[in-house]
Order: sequence, then structure tokens, then C-alpha cells
Amino acid sequence: MNIYSALKRVIVGRRLSNEQMGETLLPKRLALPVFASDALSSVAYAPDEILITLSLAGMTGYMFSWQIGVAVAVVVGVVVLSYRQTVHAYPTGGGDYEVASANLGNRSSLIVGSALLVDYVLTVAVSVSAGVLNARVIVPSVVGHEVAVAIVVIVLLALMNLRGVRESGAFFAFPTYIFMASMFLMVGIGLFRILVLDQPLASETANLTVMAPDGSLEPVGWVLIAVMARAFSSGCAALTGVEAISNGVPSFRPPKSRNAASVLGMLGVIAISLLVGIMVLAHLTQVRLIDELTGAHYIDPDGNAIHSSAVTVTGQLARVVFGDWFVPGVFIVVISTVVILFLAANTAFNGFPSLASILARDAYLPRQLHSRGDRLAYSNGIVTLAITAIALIWVFDASVTSLIQLYVVGVFISFTLGQIGMIRHWSRALTTQTDRRVRRRMHRSRIINTIGAGLTGLVLVVVLISKFTHGAWLALVSMAVMYLMMTFIRRHYEAVKEEVELDEDSDRALPSRVRGVVLVQHVNLPTAKAVAFARASRNTSLVGVLVALEEEETAQVVKDWNTEDFGVQLKVIASPYREITTPFIRFVSEMRTENPRDVVAVYIPEFVVGHWWEQVLHNQTALLIRTRLHFMPGVMVISVPYQLRSSKLARERARAASRPGRRTPGAR
Amino acid sequence: MNIYSALKRVIVGRRLSNEQMGETLLPKRLALPVFASDALSSVAYAPDEILITLSLAGMTGYMFSWQIGVAVAVVVGVVVLSYRQTVHAYPTGGGDYEVASANLGNRSSLIVGSALLVDYVLTVAVSVSAGVLNARVIVPSVVGHEVAVAIVVIVLLALMNLRGVRESGAFFAFPTYIFMASMFLMVGIGLFRILVLDQPLASETANLTVMAPDGSLEPVGWVLIAVMARAFSSGCAALTGVEAISNGVPSFRPPKSRNAASVLGMLGVIAISLLVGIMVLAHLTQVRLIDELTGAHYIDPDGNAIHSSAVTVTGQLARVVFGDWFVPGVFIVVISTVVILFLAANTAFNGFPSLASILARDAYLPRQLHSRGDRLAYSNGIVTLAITAIALIWVFDASVTSLIQLYVVGVFISFTLGQIGMIRHWSRALTTQTDRRVRRRMHRSRIINTIGAGLTGLVLVVVLISKFTHGAWLALVSMAVMYLMMTFIRRHYEAVKEEVELDEDSDRALPSRVRGVVLVQHVNLPTAKAVAFARASRNTSLVGVLVALEEEETAQVVKDWNTEDFGVQLKVIASPYREITTPFIRFVSEMRTENPRDVVAVYIPEFVVGHWWEQVLHNQTALLIRTRLHFMPGVMVISVPYQLRSSKLARERARAASRPGRRTPGAR
Repeated sequence: MNIYSALKRVIVGRRLSNEQMGETLLPKRLALPVFASDALSSVAYAPDEILITLSLAGMTGYMFSWQIGVAVAVVVGVVVLSYRQTVHAYPTGGGDYEVASANLGNRSSLIVGSALLVDYVLTVAVSVSAGVLNARVIVPSVVGHEVAVAIVVIVLLALMNLRGVRESGAFFAFPTYIFMASMFLMVGIGLFRILVLDQPLASETANLTVMAPDGSLEPVGWVLIAVMARAFSSGCAALTGVEAISNGVPSFRPPKSRNAASVLGMLGVIAISLLVGIMVLAHLTQVRLIDELTGAHYIDPDGNAIHSSAVTVTGQLARVVFGDWFVPGVFIVVISTVVILFLAANTAFNGFPSLASILARDAYLPRQLHSRGDRLAYSNGIVTLAITAIALIWVFDASVTSLIQLYVVGVFISFTLGQIGMIRHWSRALTTQTDRRVRRRMHRSRIINTIGAGLTGLVLVVVLISKFTHGAWLALVSMAVMYLMMTFIRRHYEAVKEEVELDEDSDRALPSRVRGVVLVQHVNLPTAKAVAFARASRNTSLVGVLVALEEEETAQVVKDWNTEDFGVQLKVIASPYREITTPFIRFVSEMRTENPRDVVAVYIPEFVVGHWWEQVLHNQTALLIRTRLHFMPGVMVISVPYQLRSSKLARERARAASRPGRRTPGAR
Repeated sequence: MNIYSALKRVIVGRRLSNEQMGETLLPKRLALPVFASDALSSVAYAPDEILITLSLAGMTGYMFSWQIGVAVAVVVGVVVLSYRQTVHAYPTGGGDYEVASANLGNRSSLIVGSALLVDYVLTVAVSVSAGVLNARVIVPSVVGHEVAVAIVVIVLLALMNLRGVRESGAFFAFPTYIFMASMFLMVGIGLFRILVLDQPLASETANLTVMAPDGSLEPVGWVLIAVMARAFSSGCAALTGVEAISNGVPSFRPPKSRNAASVLGMLGVIAISLLVGIMVLAHLTQVRLIDELTGAHYIDPDGNAIHSSAVTVTGQLARVVFGDWFVPGVFIVVISTVVILFLAANTAFNGFPSLASILARDAYLPRQLHSRGDRLAYSNGIVTLAITAIALIWVFDASVTSLIQLYVVGVFISFTLGQIGMIRHWSRALTTQTDRRVRRRMHRSRIINTIGAGLTGLVLVVVLISKFTHGAWLALVSMAVMYLMMTFIRRHYEAVKEEVELDEDSDRALPSRVRGVVLVQHVNLPTAKAVAFARASRNTSLVGVLVALEEEETAQVVKDWNTEDFGVQLKVIASPYREITTPFIRFVSEMRTENPRDVVAVYIPEFVVGHWWEQVLHNQTALLIRTRLHFMPGVMVISVPYQLRSSKLARERARAASRPGRRTPGAR
């Protein structure tokens, strides 16, 4: 244990106390980057996915590209407005789970919980895949190794998070601000050059014609509508991460709600302008994007078919805007995009264990996940998240276009239920509120949340219909599995809780007597210690029990026992099977049967050792007996540890290995 | 545990008590097959290895084939005579280990122990490989899959042995007697046809010329001597297993020693006649055997080189003796050879755990291996043996010729030390013996053992010199590793024994007071039970300790505690890290520091569950605290188990699953 602990400290870093967590209250200038990286990063892949989906309708689809961008932006706006209400109503951190739990009951909140858990996994998979895709713009050697690179990135993120979250504030601020600035500059300069300087900027894919998979150039009617619906659904990936701030209100500096709401507002404005800006600029520079997986392809001006896809929208725009006069600009845009996408994945590494902790508090997940104290619980969450995300990336070949089909479903389930919960919240609050001004504000909030719920519900339906067969079913199945598992765990805990509840009928009588039994194998210090402890415990009766294996040895032990004069009788019991466990267990069991009202206290001398291999050489019998006595009602098992020198040395070594000048809590 | 136990019973079968073992006393007619299969089976591959080694000297080597057979037979005779002395001197079962231990001291006995452990592994590998090689005679489709077949056989043997050894007597008798009968018939009929009927029997390889690896037809001098020495060494594989009877004297019917000695005599006569008979017959029918691995090859009468080896000597002889008039004879010989070889491997599966048990008794191996009671200890030995044998077969490609180079070394180390031990034994006995007739017998025995020791020592030197670079070094290195490991374990046990010894200076004072602490997480039945037990234990003081994680929950627990009116004070301690373990450990540790003469008794309520997955949901905190308290001197850890319904159901299921009408010992 000690070596393991020391190693863990080195890799995972020192623990944070609640007080230290208090230090991390965030000013707005840090809160924005910390909470917004997830939401903002999605503008790096949402435009790509819109264009790729539209390419399924060939050039016709592209006629509607920026309108779809605007539609998504409208949804972003409404959702941001809705969450500002949540932030005000739940200053203690009202994630959708909490809101649903408080207003809609267990089932809804558990649906939200399942949806969010699945979506955290997808956030990691999608963000990292998108980051790797963008990295290809400046590091072409990544091509062909996307899966490997993505896995390495996830492993690094997991290790970083296993070491702790102290980095937060400043660590997020720099790259996020660089990202925002460079993106705004890119969009601004691009639009300025085209609209004001009237320069004919054309992207590298402008002269390519996009051919739909079936080859028809002019799809009409339902086909076109279906494609546009899917493009919109994919574009809605831009909304992921918006809810982060409503979870994180307690981390804001006071006035918490006000600050959180204003950061949310800023986030909304930035996200909308970037999204619309990018879509418009892509439209003006005629970016055409396909994904070879969908079956769409390019035709070049000479009429040749090109089946490999071009680089990301961000990459193309950076090249066209900066490429001809300021090449470093291309690098800054792309690198900051990659970094912010990895940061977005990183937020999931914080969010997932937090949510798991809350779910564990409500008995939906194993209890030990609740404790935030030691990072053990968090570690489990981080490792689980990393492994599932890696599996997804492996299966879907790190393809953002494939992964995005699974995404968004969970987010919108959570959005919709959260907003419905808020409607209920306001309605309830109105029944007790009498102040007219407050009532008016509440009415307004309720209207906003109703619009939010309606719109997000509508989007959810669109997403489900347009993506169900393309992958959304898998996300739904995963959520259902999570839901059932968590229901099962909760039910188990509740059944156990009920089983062990103290009620009026519970037997409160004290056991009349305690009969002590010391397991004797040798007469030595550990045994003497166990006997001393047993005697000090002043049981009603006390007896040493020796299982006779070899005649000679038994005789020797009996002799030693009498020499020592413990003042305790030694009983020798026969062992027909030449083994210790069964006869001893039978002895204890008979003692119980004879005196059912009494308790039997079994004292087992145990060695505490310093090395793992010593464990193989000692305590095997004690372990076996302990395990089997566990099944016997009315039996207390008392391990009387005897510390061997090696264990003391190991403890001292572990203590010396921990950092000097730091208080080592406990023996660990 | 219950499910595991039930499963284990199904696979491993019921246990044998010491009394049941008593039933298995063997009459001579059963003792011979039980103990002789190992020794006799080696006549199935010793001739092959002699001829293959001689092929390294081309046709010249074959001139000496039957003389080498005779030399080996002489060694067999001397060794059998020597062991008859051992059997008389140690009627309680004098394996070489016991003899060396009693007469030569720890080091020698440990060398014997290491040698035998390594040789048991080789017995399995060599016998199974040889069995598979013989199977090729009648099942040609085995060719090319030898390794796979050999591994399957070992796995089956291991499973059979995990199920138990009840089969012994009758199970061994039938195939062993068939083997002896068919081999004697084959040799007898063959010699009769050639010598009496004067039929010109010639084996299928008679018209082939053997070419030595270097192509020279006439090696002379040292080369020839070296080849013959190696051939003799390989032939000495025929001696393996002879010592089995001296280990097994207690299993004989009385008069044990006399019966064992006469069975040993029979074994010697049978082994010698078969070995010499086969070598002579092979010589007369001009069997030529090569192994493609050595580089030797055949030249057929037309002058073409043939590089693939022929079938085994037994196979060739069976075909030439029976093939032209009674084909079933071929099958009987070959099948019984295969079976007896697998039986020989099986004896190692009994011998290895027995030896491990004796070594564990002497503290050279982990103590728990000593207990013969439950088969747990034996299982470990069986699995270890199977895995190492499989590894050897894998590495050496199931080649008997390669494996035999590692073999024999251990056997002769054990022989030599055993015989030296016997010389010492007689010399000692003579110092106290006054009866002249007895003295004369002892003198004679000492002379026989001296000859035995001299001869086996000489063979050991020949084996070491002729085989060292061919593989014997690996066997020696393995033995050295085993020796060092066992010395280390023994030293560890001795150091611990000394450390925990009770002497005059040992502190025998009883702890002045016992301060009880109950770990409280909830107020429920398990907690109430723990409190009741703690109160019944009448400690000097008793306090409940609650670690405050969440304010609300803490308040509720405190309220419930007071409602219940346990008559015990509840202490609430703060948890800056929002975790239970560290603050609790610190509390206990401070209690210890304040009252160093007192003992702290920590009562931990624990759930006993029925399913493995429930373990994940419960007791994690208890486990962590228990593990960490173990390192604290003066602290008793008292698990107060609370049986959940699921555990009771699981216990009942396990009980129902065990065979009806059989007494189920204990809860297991």
C-alpha cells in the first residue's frame, strides 16, 4: 500500500482540500475562458459538418449554407437566454441534472444524467478528432495516423487530469483568448477584404464542383429537406458546452449569478458572431467540403473526379485570408483551434467525474465515487472516460463526421428537460411569490424558458429524425443502458437501506455474553499480543484454539502455551483433513449453535508486512478464516495486527519519499 | 466465495480426508503399476535417444548401440539395488530429500529438492512429447501439430489432477500391464523369429545409411568417445522414476518395506530386460534413427539424401515384428506406449505437489502449500507444473531430443546425494548397533550404497560433461534459481520466527485499557449491531465517530443517533478533504498518541454480500480504513459483519448445489 501510495502521489500530485478549492473562485476574465472553451471550440467543427452534410445534395445544398448557420445561431441565442434564467434561479450550480431532479423527479433527472454521461464521452471523442483534423492543415504527416494521434492526445489529457486540476484559470485563459482574437481577426479581415476592399478572395476549393453521392446535381423536395435538416442537426453541435456555465456558478466570484449570467451573455455573443461570420465568409470564398466516407466527391475544372476531402473550413479560411500576406496568421489560427479543441476535451475530464460524484451522492452510482477527497474516485471516472472515448475513436476511425451523428442527441435531451424543469420551477415559485415586480420578472423568465424548451424540443425531434439511422440510435441505446444500470444500482441501495433500517421491531437487545476465541498457530509475539488484547477486552469467556496438524508441532505448541502461562485455556481440535480452516470454522459454528444469544469474538493474530511478496508468505490462513467467518451471523472477527520490522521500514521509506516540509496525513 | 467454492467442487471434486487416504494402501499387484509407470515408460524413449545420439557418429556409432544399452541396464541394476537399502532403512517413506535432510543437512537436501522440482517439470515435458511422438506412428495427422497436441494433453492431465487422485490403483494397473505384456511379447516374438526361426527381419530403416552431420563416415578417437558418452547419458533417462517407490513406501500394504523392496526388484528386472531386449532387437533389425535437428541424415540405397526422421524405435519394432502377420499387435504396442507415457507425466502431477508440501513444511516454500487438507495447495502446484511444462514444450518445440539434454541431470544429482546420505546413515547406525547379524547386514548395505553413490556420481559427471553445452546448463541454472529462492524464503521465515519469539525481555504487560471506537456512516442495523457488540465487549470507553461529509446528511445522522439513544456518545469530525478515511485514521492515531499504553479497538460495520458486483457497491470505505489501520501499532480492527439477505440466499444456493446426502463441512 505504501509504495502504491507514494507512486500515486508522484503521478497524481498532491491532494486539494476543500479550502484550497475555495481559492479558485474565478473572476469573469478567467471564468469566460474556463467555461467557454467547450462551447467556443465547437464553432471550429460545426461549419465543417454543415457543409459536409450539404454536399450530399451537391451544389444545390450549398445555396443554403449560411442560412443554416444563421438558424443554428438563433438556437444558440435562445439557449443562452434560457440558461441565464437558470443561472439566476440556481446560484448554487444548477446543472440540468439538478434542475430536472428538483422540478421533474427522479426519472427525468436520471435521463438527463445518462444523456450527459454519454455526451461527455462524445465530447472527448469529437473534440480530439476535430483537433487532429485541424492539425493536418499544418502538420501533413498526421494524415493516415489520425487514430493513433487522437489516442495519444486522450492518454495525455487523462494523465494530466489524473495529476489534478490546479492548472485551470490561467492555463485556459491564454489559448482561449488567442483563439477568439485570431478567429475574429480572420473573419473581420476576410470580410473587410471582400466587402470593403472588394478583393476577389476564393478558397482553394472554390473552383471545384461538389457531386452528390448519387450523382444527381439537382435534388429536390424531401431529399433536399432531409439533407438540410441533417445539416442543421450537425450544426447544432455548436451548442454543446453552453450548459457548462450553469453548472459552474459556485466557482464565480460574487455576485455569482450576475457574473455567471453576464459571462453567459458574452459567450453567446461571441459564439453567434463567430459562427455566422465563419459561415458567411465560407459562403463568400466558396468553400466546398466533402467527406470521402459519405460518397460525395469533387469534380475539378478539367472534369476529373477527386475523392479525397480538402482541409477543414477554418484551415481553408485561414489560408485564403492570411496566406497571401501574413503566413504566421495561418499558423496562429490553426494552432489555437487545435489547442482549444483539446481544451474542450479536457473540460469533459472535469465534468464527467463531477457528474458521477453527484450521481453517486444520489445512489445511482457506487457510493465511493461520491467522495471528492482523495482523487481515487475521480481517477476511476477519468480512466473510464478515456477508455470509452478511445474505443469510440478506434471504432469510428477518428471521423468527426461519423461521431457527430451520435453527438447532440444527449445535449438536446438535457437542454429540453432542463428547460421544462425551469418552467415548472417558475410556476412553483409564482405560487408563493407576492411581490409584483419579482412576479413580473418570473413571468418573463418563464416565457423565455418556455420558448427555450419548445425550440430545443423541436431541435431534438429534428435531430432524432434526421440522424437516427446514421448513429443516433447508438447514443440512445448507450443512454438506455446507463439509465437501466443506474436505476438498478439505486434500487439495490434502496433495498439495502430498507433492509438495514432500524424500526420499532428491530432487535435492540444487547448480546448477553461475548465468548472470546483466539486462533493459535504458534506461541509467539503476535499470538501473545492477540491473547493480551483478548484478555483486556474482558469477554465473558476466553479460550485459545489450536488446530492439530502435525503431532509433534502440536505437542510443542501446547508445551509452549503452558510454559507461557497465559491464564487462558488452550483447546486442541482434531483436523481429519489436515487443514486449519474447516475445523476451526466448525468449532466457532458449534459455539454459536450452543449459545445463540451470545456473540463470538474471534481474535486472529495477523502479520503486517512491508513487501507484497511477504503477503504471499504470511496471513493466508488468517485471510481464509476471516473470509469464511464473515458469513456467520453473530461472529465478530478481530484482526490483531503485529507489525513486522519490514512494515515499519516500509512505512518510514514511504514517509521519507513524500515531499519534505509537508504534513503527511495519517500513516498513508 | 460461495459460488467460487461450489464451482471448485464441481471441477475439482470432493475432498479426501486422512482416513480416506488410509483406504488406498496398495497390494503389490497394484503398487507395481502405480509406481513403475514412470520408470518403465522411459524404456519407450531411451533407446531412441541412444540411437539418435549415436547417429552423430554415422554408421560407426551404431556398432556400439546394444553395448550402450547394456551399460545403462547395469546402472539401472545398481540403482535398484541401492534403493532397496533405502526402502528398508526408511519405511516411513525415504525420498532422496528426506534421506539427504536426515543425513547430510539442509544444504544437500535443498539441492535435492531443487533438482527434483525441476525434474518433475521435465518429466512432464519429456514424457508427453515422447507420447505424442509415438502417437505419430498410428495417427499420422499429428505430424506438424506436435506442440499443440502435447499442450492439450498436459491441460487434460492438469484438469484430471485438479479433480483428484482417487483413480490411482486400478486406473494405472490396466494400461501398465498391457504395456509390459505387449512389449515383452514384441521383444520375445521378435527375438524368437530371428534367432530361432532364423527369419531375416529387417526394420523399415535397415537399408538406409546414416550420415553424421559433418559428413565423415568414420569418426575416431575423442569424437567417438564424446558421442558415446552422450548416448549413454541420454540412455540414462531410462532411470528416471526409479526413486518413486522409495517415496511411496507408506502406501504399501504391510510388511511395507519388504513389499516395497520386492516391487522395486521386479521393476528392476522388468526395466532391464525390456531395455536390453529392445536394444538387441533394434540392433538385429538394423533400426537406424536420426533427428533432423541434429543435422544427421539418411542416404537411401539409390544415394539420395533423406532429411526427415523415421518413426520411433518402438514403432519400427512393432511394425517389423507384428506388421506381416498380426497388425493389431502394432496398434496395441503403440497405444499402450502412448498411454504409459502420459501416465508417467501424470505421476509428476502427484509428485510435484507432494514434494512442495514437504518443502513447505520445512519452510522452504510458502506455508500454505503444506496443508494437504483442501486441494487449494495442491492446485497451485498442479497449475504451476502444467504452465512450466507447457512453456518448455513450446520453447523446445516438443522435441524429446532437445528436452532430454536438460533431463537426467537433476535425477542423478538426487541419486548421488541420496546414496551418499545412505552411506552416512549406515555408518551412524553402525556406531550404535551391537547385534552381529544386523551389523553384517548393515555393512553389506553400506557397500551397496557406496557402489551406488560411486556409480551414480560417475554418471552425473559424464552427463554434466557430455551435455552441459547442449542444455544441461539451463537445468542447472533453474535449479540454482530454485535453490536461492527457497533459501531466501526459509531465511525470511526464520528471521520472522526469531522476531516474533517470546523471550524473557518480551513485554507481557496487559494493555491497561481498551478504548472502543465505532465507525459510523449511517444509523442503521449494521451500525446498531456494531454498537451492540462494542457495548457487550465492555471496553473502558466507547465512542461513535462520524466523519462529516455533507452538512445535511451529517445533521440527519446525528439526529437519528440521538433518537436511537444508543447510550454512546457520537463524535463528529471535520473532513477538509471531503473524504472519510484520512480524518478517521488521524482521529484513531491521536487517540493512540494520547494514551500510548492503551489499546484502541475500532469497530467497523461491514456488509456481507452474496454477489461479486455487490462488493463493488459496498464496503469500499471499510476496506480502505481496515487496510490503513493495519499499519498502526496498538489498534485492533473489529469487523462486525452484517449479513444481507443476498448473502444468505447465496449461501443456501451453494449448499443446495453441493451433493445431496453428503455432510457439508462448515459454511463453505
